[in-house]
Amino acid sequence: MAEPGTEDGPGERRRPPLRVGMVGHAFMGAAHSQAWRTAHRVFDLPLRPVPAALCGRNADAVRRAAERHGWASTETDWRALVAREDIDLVDICTPGDSHADIALAALAAGKHVLCEKPLANTVAEAEAMARAAEEAEARGRFAMVGFNYRRVPATALARRMIAEGRLGRLRHVRATYLQDWLADPGAPLTWRLRRERAGSGALGDLGAHVVDLAQYLAGEPLAGVSALTETFVRRRPLPAGSEAARGLSARAAEDATGEVTVDDAALFTGRFASGALASFEATRYATGRKNSLRIELNGEHGSLAFDLERLNELAYHDGTEPGERAGFRRILVTEPEHPYLDAWWPPGHGLGYEHTFVHQIRDLVHAIAEGRRPEPSFADGLRVQRVLAAVEESAAKNAVYTPTDTRSVPTAP
Amino acid sequence: MAEPGTEDGPGERRRPPLRVGMVGHAFMGAAHSQAWRTAHRVFDLPLRPVPAALCGRNADAVRRAAERHGWASTETDWRALVAREDIDLVDICTPGDSHADIALAALAAGKHVLCEKPLANTVAEAEAMARAAEEAEARGRFAMVGFNYRRVPATALARRMIAEGRLGRLRHVRATYLQDWLADPGAPLTWRLRRERAGSGALGDLGAHVVDLAQYLAGEPLAGVSALTETFVRRRPLPAGSEAARGLSARAAEDATGEVTVDDAALFTGRFASGALASFEATRYATGRKNSLRIELNGEHGSLAFDLERLNELAYHDGTEPGERAGFRRILVTEPEHPYLDAWWPPGHGLGYEHTFVHQIRDLVHAIAEGRRPEPSFADGLRVQRVLAAVEESAAKNAVYTPTDTRSVPTAP
Amino acid sequence: MAEPGTEDGPGERRRPPLRVGMVGHAFMGAAHSQAWRTAHRVFDLPLRPVPAALCGRNADAVRRAAERHGWASTETDWRALVAREDIDLVDICTPGDSHADIALAALAAGKHVLCEKPLANTVAEAEAMARAAEEAEARGRFAMVGFNYRRVPATALARRMIAEGRLGRLRHVRATYLQDWLADPGAPLTWRLRRERAGSGALGDLGAHVVDLAQYLAGEPLAGVSALTETFVRRRPLPAGSEAARGLSARAAEDATGEVTVDDAALFTGRFASGALASFEATRYATGRKNSLRIELNGEHGSLAFDLERLNELAYHDGTEPGERAGFRRILVTEPEHPYLDAWWPPGHGLGYEHTFVHQIRDLVHAIAEGRRPEPSFADGLRVQRVLAAVEESAAKNAVYTPTDTRSVPTAP
Amino acid sequence: MAEPGTEDGPGERRRPPLRVGMVGHAFMGAAHSQAWRTAHRVFDLPLRPVPAALCGRNADAVRRAAERHGWASTETDWRALVAREDIDLVDICTPGDSHADIALAALAAGKHVLCEKPLANTVAEAEAMARAAEEAEARGRFAMVGFNYRRVPATALARRMIAEGRLGRLRHVRATYLQDWLADPGAPLTWRLRRERAGSGALGDLGAHVVDLAQYLAGEPLAGVSALTETFVRRRPLPAGSEAARGLSARAAEDATGEVTVDDAALFTGRFASGALASFEATRYATGRKNSLRIELNGEHGSLAFDLERLNELAYHDGTEPGERAGFRRILVTEPEHPYLDAWWPPGHGLGYEHTFVHQIRDLVHAIAEGRRPEPSFADGLRVQRVLAAVEESAAKNAVYTPTDTRSVPTAP
Repeated sequence: MAEPGTEDGPGERRRPPLRVGMVGHAFMGAAHSQAWRTAHRVFDLPLRPVPAALCGRNADAVRRAAERHGWASTETDWRALVAREDIDLVDICTPGDSHADIALAALAAGKHVLCEKPLANTVAEAEAMARAAEEAEARGRFAMVGFNYRRVPATALARRMIAEGRLGRLRHVRATYLQDWLADPGAPLTWRLRRERAGSGALGDLGAHVVDLAQYLAGEPLAGVSALTETFVRRRPLPAGSEAARGLSARAAEDATGEVTVDDAALFTGRFASGALASFEATRYATGRKNSLRIELNGEHGSLAFDLERLNELAYHDGTEPGERAGFRRILVTEPEHPYLDAWWPPGHGLGYEHTFVHQIRDLVHAIAEGRRPEPSFADGLRVQRVLAAVEESAAKNAVYTPTDTRSVPTAP
Repeated sequence: MAEPGTEDGPGERRRPPLRVGMVGHAFMGAAHSQAWRTAHRVFDLPLRPVPAALCGRNADAVRRAAERHGWASTETDWRALVAREDIDLVDICTPGDSHADIALAALAAGKHVLCEKPLANTVAEAEAMARAAEEAEARGRFAMVGFNYRRVPATALARRMIAEGRLGRLRHVRATYLQDWLADPGAPLTWRLRRERAGSGALGDLGAHVVDLAQYLAGEPLAGVSALTETFVRRRPLPAGSEAARGLSARAAEDATGEVTVDDAALFTGRFASGALASFEATRYATGRKNSLRIELNGEHGSLAFDLERLNELAYHDGTEPGERAGFRRILVTEPEHPYLDAWWPPGHGLGYEHTFVHQIRDLVHAIAEGRRPEPSFADGLRVQRVLAAVEESAAKNAVYTPTDTRSVPTAP
Repeated sequence: MAEPGTEDGPGERRRPPLRVGMVGHAFMGAAHSQAWRTAHRVFDLPLRPVPAALCGRNADAVRRAAERHGWASTETDWRALVAREDIDLVDICTPGDSHADIALAALAAGKHVLCEKPLANTVAEAEAMARAAEEAEARGRFAMVGFNYRRVPATALARRMIAEGRLGRLRHVRATYLQDWLADPGAPLTWRLRRERAGSGALGDLGAHVVDLAQYLAGEPLAGVSALTETFVRRRPLPAGSEAARGLSARAAEDATGEVTVDDAALFTGRFASGALASFEATRYATGRKNSLRIELNGEHGSLAFDLERLNELAYHDGTEPGERAGFRRILVTEPEHPYLDAWWPPGHGLGYEHTFVHQIRDLVHAIAEGRRPEPSFADGLRVQRVLAAVEESAAKNAVYTPTDTRSVPTAP
Repeated sequence: MAEPGTEDGPGERRRPPLRVGMVGHAFMGAAHSQAWRTAHRVFDLPLRPVPAALCGRNADAVRRAAERHGWASTETDWRALVAREDIDLVDICTPGDSHADIALAALAAGKHVLCEKPLANTVAEAEAMARAAEEAEARGRFAMVGFNYRRVPATALARRMIAEGRLGRLRHVRATYLQDWLADPGAPLTWRLRRERAGSGALGDLGAHVVDLAQYLAGEPLAGVSALTETFVRRRPLPAGSEAARGLSARAAEDATGEVTVDDAALFTGRFASGALASFEATRYATGRKNSLRIELNGEHGSLAFDLERLNELAYHDGTEPGERAGFRRILVTEPEHPYLDAWWPPGHGLGYEHTFVHQIRDLVHAIAEGRRPEPSFADGLRVQRVLAAVEESAAKNAVYTPTDTRSVPTAP
């Protein structure tokens, strides 16, 4: 009976380890944990990810989470995590207000970084992060921002087809990201509804995804936008047990409401550098739409359409076919010819949301091992941030068309 | 063997006639003809439509069309048609540049009027028409504008459900009307691409439909808009045999191009009076989308979605249902409980595009017989025209948010 | 002002007339009437259909129907209609028990015949009819059976593609025709539930359609079948005012039920002559399925699928495409390249159920004018009848596989 | 820095272990491995699964697989695995011909057993296994058969809704499982096409799934069936490097073909105990259908439909709703109210194929810990096997209706 992975056998375990420290263990932390555990089981990776340390502010909670998700140790201060020598990569799964601090410290400490989206809460932070990431590359350290929807096999296939020229000259991109969890005016005031934590509302949470996806698929940046934003419900009940509710009597706490300081919905139109037109909508008030990220691109020779609620499918219209037989085809993106799929199941056996994170890690690990910039890079994250800033500026100025800042990453002053 | 409809029998033929004179016999003329022939066969109408006269500029062509479509006589000058005493209603199926002249003359001559959309090419014309229609009502003459997509059973059902309060407070309307016949840069320069005939491009042709439908379904006017428009292909080949090509040699004609003077695509966002947000897109460059008018409305308690390419269906999400069993349902709008359907076939036997015109005539004839204003009225048509004007104004002013003129119809000076 | 269609002008009216006498004016009669009125308005027909006479047993009812649907005269005895010299074609829209008598008499009287499906209630009747139709051809008279679902543009396109070899060797056909109007056990006992009128239940009403469509699309006959049939609800309330209820007191009538003597549902599998496998289901108990005729064909090189509830669409999978981009495409069958469509509206403007009857008349009139057998012929109708008979025989014999009679039409004894 | 799961902390690691030995490491082995690694990370399980040993015939291959998939040790003889005292559960992922031997030995050795479907290649084997499983229960050992499609949240929801009576009296079940990997006649002769290994073809591989799902959802057994089976392509090329090809010269091997000894496709109809009708189809020749398991159930009060290619959705028609608003709704089965979903992601974030195995383990571990029979039990597996046997018997006897053996598990002689 041979033990696998012992010294003298060829084996997974002899691949160099990539020791990961993750900050944050809520929804995103759970998704990333599952991905770190899974990626090297499915794909041949040049480095072996090791879930080394999990960091959270509450010692008990982080210990329970570490047990649940399989992390070998815990920290309660991200600065301690970043300082550990036995950590190669810091994975940031916290709200946006702490991204910049952690990422800059981790890069400075010589770690690779994976940072959840949106990259930061302000353009200034994002610029600093992108600059730091660029500098770190010189030292062989790399940073990626977690726009995981680039890693749905269907969107990756879409990008491949567009890069091959199958759409021809691009005319239109239309993208929506619709959810409905705020349709009920009685839903509580979580941190996602406070500007100081979340930076913005639907715009940064949902809009950031579709802006990145649109720029990624189009292969070019948005040149400018015109935007309307709205906060439909201005005050909401404080969540039970929230900090703000703590000082109040039970009864007062029950009645207490707080102000929503972010957008509930953002609509914007725009122009790509090439002249193609774009429209975007992000909202949390689309009753019945649970996670409806849809994007369609129309080009001179064809069109592509994707819907996250049917993530194993890609719709494709080949405009060069004879009219008699042309039509949007539903490509079931589950075949070995499709991105990422040769490592998974037989044809037709669909993947789910979590696998976008597995693919993200696969691509990140390859980039690190091969010493090249992973995508989406912090510079890509900055590009999204600048679009979001232009959206907010336009919305504040009566929707007037507002160019985005498309300069490259500024070098340090 | 009894002859039907003789003097002494009860019969369809004894119902008072409504003698129709129609101007124009292209695509819209054919659709209207079929509807005038059909409406009283399917529905019990208080008046019996009689296709009395067809008018077109070319005598041969109009005679052939009259034979084909079953019109009893022909005219080559619309002024002659309007002057005929044996005509009760003038149906205007010409391009937009002649709508105002014909409609004003017909109303002045004491005719009822059905006018294709968009109502006119300018707001000034539309105002004059709405004013004239209002004045005619005092004399028992009525005018309707042909926004036929209000008469799809599915959209009529949507309106009924919204009026019943099933969506609750409205949050979002998103509407697109996508076609693709200009995706090919070699497609010729038809009259629809010239401002002097068509008034505008995708905006007036397609955008007008979705603006009317959005205002109709929402039950409220758009308060303002922010718009981008674009003409992707600036010059196109002159159509073979076109007037502009006539003076040229064969070879020159082949090479000759003309300027596209209307928009190819229009994107706009907006706010309804109630604060709900709206987004619109009209384009002729959406490769693979043939006649894709889609509209979705999200309210606090539910959502509705419609797609003209599947016009026998309405999607409805009832947000008050338990989450376990909630979902967008596909209502097959072919049951006797649905608008217009009790007069047609058994359950599940779908209707087509042409039946929207049959329903339009049914409703128009009832309104005329009952002496009440038909909907959509010329005032409704004016409302759409004012939104289109605001769209053009915003597009000209860098997308700045532009309020629409929501005053009532101005009285004559 | 020229009158159209006068003696000296070229015109529709100078085309030779085809004077139609129709028997029956319920649902099918209404659909056929609309088609007779419409066909020559849309298509260039070599003969001009004239709705000359309508026949029904109740004089008042038939007079009202004639007025409503535009028939020039009425009859109350089909024998009188058949005897009229001013009738060229007899259109039979009655229940199946009278098809053979009327059709045989009409053919004997030198009329063309259009007969609703199923062709007859028994194979013997159908054989007599097919024989008579064959004999009539020698005299230049033609007969067609009304399997109108061959005339959906999408199914006609499917047939064209299959005939071109796009599916390659056929492997599977699966077809269902699902309705739900008997799901309620309280639904009344109409004539469709009595064997003596209807011949059979779901089998003849719905199954006949899918058997014909399957044989038409496959281009070959079913060689044998294995069947289960079921009558789920054995007794149903007598319809108010029905003959059977007439002798009873009001109270007794209310409680009175009658026996259902036909099948509620029929399931059968089979083999085509080529060895392809087939499965069929016809039922009136599929809650929520209103008119769900679906058929899918799988061949070595491709597949096609059709759903009557979305009749403007055809799904096509081209198995010869690279796996990366292959998928079922949704062909919107509304383009000028598609069968029948060049005569209708611009791209994307869908048709409805009624237009299958318009196309049926178009094809019938062409065949008559050109002196060739229309399709589906009475021989095709007989082929369907023989399959239905084999289904009933198999069902009676414990589902044992039962060959169908695939001999040609027997000649007269 | 606290280590998680140490002695003094409450922790995952202190839960009693369930030490798993798995036989087979191809497709199913990979899927099961991922599930064993994941289940306790997502769900609170009463036992902690430990991937203790992996067994395969080739020592190198099994060692590589163990490393890849995270198994702590390896075996090359399943008898050795079964004999190990440090194994609590044997998971059987081999072809069907070895299921009975391994399962009987494992149960005899006091192990719990999870066995892939179909349970066995013959009814006799399945009976022996069911009997052994029943006896083992007395000793606190449990056996489950891997019909994982019961664990799609959508099918589990369907079962819950049916058990609540939402469909009322059942009328119809129609189920198909369509794949296309044999559509190409040049596809090689794998073990799945040889009766001695696979037992049967599409019938056992695909048909078994839909038979189990149908009986599970209906909540009752199939009483009898009528079947047609077919082998379309009788000889296929030997796979490169196969045993059969080994003795041949390179050139001969290339030309060598072997006989397909199983069915390519199976069609069968049937009756449930309650009288509901059922139809089934399993095939590997449905070009373009990759993994198309579809099942629809129609009852007196409603209908449900499921499609594995869109596994996060369930279609539901509530027949008790007013006709105006009734329609098949698409339930996105991704909400916390849905089976298994409260442990996963936020609303709308879909799962994939692999998660059916995670849920299977969750349910199995709970049953073992609570000392109750897991479902589907070996008796359920036997029930499926008996239906498959009746299908084969009917197919051999000209499709004659063949009752299934619905006796309970026979006790040992």
